Amino acid sequence: MSDEPQRLSRRGLLGLAGAGAAGLALGGAGGAAVAGVAASAATRQSTLYPFFGVHQAGITTPAQDRLHFAAFDLADGATADDLRELLSDWTYAASRMTQGLEVTEGGAVGGSPLAPPADTGEALGLPPAGLTITFGFGPGLFDDRFGLAKRRPAALEPLPGFSGDALIPDQSGGDLCIQACADDPQVAVHAIRNLSRIAFGRAAIRWSQLGFGRTASTSTAQATPRNLFGFKDGTANVKAEETEAVDEHVWVASAEGPAWMVGGSYLVARKIRMVIESWDRTRLEEQQRVIGREKGEGAPLSGGTEFTEPDFDKPDDDGSPRIAEDAHVRLSHPDANGGARMLRRGYNFVDGNDELGRLDAGLFFLSFQRHPEQFVTVQRSLGGHDALNEYIKHVGSALFAIPPGAKEGASIGDALFGS
Amino acid sequence: MSDEPQRLSRRGLLGLAGAGAAGLALGGAGGAAVAGVAASAATRQSTLYPFFGVHQAGITTPAQDRLHFAAFDLADGATADDLRELLSDWTYAASRMTQGLEVTEGGAVGGSPLAPPADTGEALGLPPAGLTITFGFGPGLFDDRFGLAKRRPAALEPLPGFSGDALIPDQSGGDLCIQACADDPQVAVHAIRNLSRIAFGRAAIRWSQLGFGRTASTSTAQATPRNLFGFKDGTANVKAEETEAVDEHVWVASAEGPAWMVGGSYLVARKIRMVIESWDRTRLEEQQRVIGREKGEGAPLSGGTEFTEPDFDKPDDDGSPRIAEDAHVRLSHPDANGGARMLRRGYNFVDGNDELGRLDAGLFFLSFQRHPEQFVTVQRSLGGHDALNEYIKHVGSALFAIPPGAKEGASIGDALFGS
Repeated sequence: MSDEPQRLSRRGLLGLAGAGAAGLALGGAGGAAVAGVAASAATRQSTLYPFFGVHQAGITTPAQDRLHFAAFDLADGATADDLRELLSDWTYAASRMTQGLEVTEGGAVGGSPLAPPADTGEALGLPPAGLTITFGFGPGLFDDRFGLAKRRPAALEPLPGFSGDALIPDQSGGDLCIQACADDPQVAVHAIRNLSRIAFGRAAIRWSQLGFGRTASTSTAQATPRNLFGFKDGTANVKAEETEAVDEHVWVASAEGPAWMVGGSYLVARKIRMVIESWDRTRLEEQQRVIGREKGEGAPLSGGTEFTEPDFDKPDDDGSPRIAEDAHVRLSHPDANGGARMLRRGYNFVDGNDELGRLDAGLFFLSFQRHPEQFVTVQRSLGGHDALNEYIKHVGSALFAIPPGAKEGASIGDALFGS
Repeated sequence: MSDEPQRLSRRGLLGLAGAGAAGLALGGAGGAAVAGVAASAATRQSTLYPFFGVHQAGITTPAQDRLHFAAFDLADGATADDLRELLSDWTYAASRMTQGLEVTEGGAVGGSPLAPPADTGEALGLPPAGLTITFGFGPGLFDDRFGLAKRRPAALEPLPGFSGDALIPDQSGGDLCIQACADDPQVAVHAIRNLSRIAFGRAAIRWSQLGFGRTASTSTAQATPRNLFGFKDGTANVKAEETEAVDEHVWVASAEGPAWMVGGSYLVARKIRMVIESWDRTRLEEQQRVIGREKGEGAPLSGGTEFTEPDFDKPDDDGSPRIAEDAHVRLSHPDANGGARMLRRGYNFVDGNDELGRLDAGLFFLSFQRHPEQFVTVQRSLGGHDALNEYIKHVGSALFAIPPGAKEGASIGDALFGS
């Protein structure tokens, strides 16, 4: 079954059709050969990333502008076969949607008029907009439900608590995750929506997050974007072009294993609410001191331009370091963390406003690393001492193992179930 | 004061600096002549709409892809002078931000390092991205608080209740509104954030909404986008190029007045939650029957292509009309509503998910019309009978008078206070 994700499973089709449509003749929908409207000329004009490959897309892929991220929990009573079938269905659907196709053949308008449309249709006619879909496995997947306890990577321990955490359980954790990134939010939303429909009866969304304005560039060809504190963010990020650094800091190698994770990575997601109104009342000098960079061009306070390496020893006129001891750039720097670096891929978010009329806004932090310890080390360094802590609150947290990419014809996570 | 919005009022500056900064020497901030980073080459490359003009921008402007909309309530005890000063400050700031400039001179990095930055900075270096900022006045503004009761347009009555309304008070109404539209969400969010900071102590956000994927084209040059039901939406919308229709259906003329509203319009905002899971389980034939259009190309079920006029009398083989009596396209058509048309400018929204793992998603409907009665007529026609009602729920509602545009050097709403 999962060796040939050339079509959806019967249950995947039932998910798309909805439980109420169980009596329909669904066999034909998967086999219909009607070309979807989405496969138009516009499709080919736009950026398109292959779904299959050694690594999953959506990690070193140049960060797209929009995000829809969802964490799922498996249904009560779901079995290992259910999980494997779901991953096969998701692989099939993701491999189509990332190419600008509808979720299955016979999608929104090509199937039987007597069946619900398989595809919800809101992306019909839109180009793929650089869509990537990246799947991950939470620590809970390796409990005793699916017989996977022995395959749990030692690295996939739930994250420890950090000083200042104010985590909301409903916005944390999850058995599975899907990161959908695209340059058009409608394309990203369409992907999450249809993947969650496919999961019907097998897994349901636990929490989800929309984001915009990527907060870290992952390619040297991209300008450094700004977070909602107004500062450039991700200047020192691991970039895709630094292939040695990517190998060293992002991809799991055979040395540490387990074998099914080689070529994969670990994803940390943290929803960080910004206390915007306090920040906005802080004077420019103090904002720059907190970050350790100048706001306009993003140069370190020790001088130079944006990409000049910070000089943490350089003294001010009064002999104290120009970059403060508790500056964010100092405490998050590899020098302060045993060389730990991560590939960050976060997004800004605004989730409306609170009852006091303040924007509910912040940073949805996403980082990929070879071992979660890289994040833990940096966050421990920041958690206790970072001057920025006065202005942020971590409200959501999750960790996922990101398996390697699938070969064409195989499914994401196949190796996890392999003998 | 409001005749020359060439700088922010002292209170507007205090809002930007935050209440805690009242002791700072603010006089210099408005006069600093440091050029903002935002006025870069990139600024000039991007679409830029003038703020000043006969009509406010953001109505017939080709619909941008992203929205941040906010409704405000004035603070307890606010006076007519406060309101007028706020509108002057908002005009000044909007006239700058729409041109790709920071919210005031001496913005995020150009002011005193001893003062909080005036501009929050997250749009530094971003092009204006077609930003338009459109201001409106709710019915509550014309109660006895500001001496404006006599100037209340007769048309600005709170909307009546409609069959099927499930309105949430916290997501409805408001004394003032700001619609910020841009092709970059970060630019739209930056505008609302800084305008709300300026309002500090005078007005606060009552509710706000982010949107994406405009659901109606307002120009014949734009393709018709799809809503989250997967159908093209807004095929028959009033388009900017139809100048006669725009004059007839959108702009308030001197015949109906009041004088201060001539060249203005009325904006109806409705937050419409879609019951997506029910819709997704409905067969294609039924979806098309409910809408009255074919899903793929958007042609009416009476035949033709997307822009073919529906033939409501054309019978099916069994003699019943091809477009059902309760089809959305029939009940919303001008023929069924005494010729009423509107300029619709809505957006799709996804506000995360509910506790059952379903996306909290739908349509944030925005329509501009010469008189709210146009909306009321169509909504009454739809409210009782529309086959679509099974799949939607109106959860938010608001009505605003949109004053005409301001001349350069004047403020939005000046005529409202004129003698």
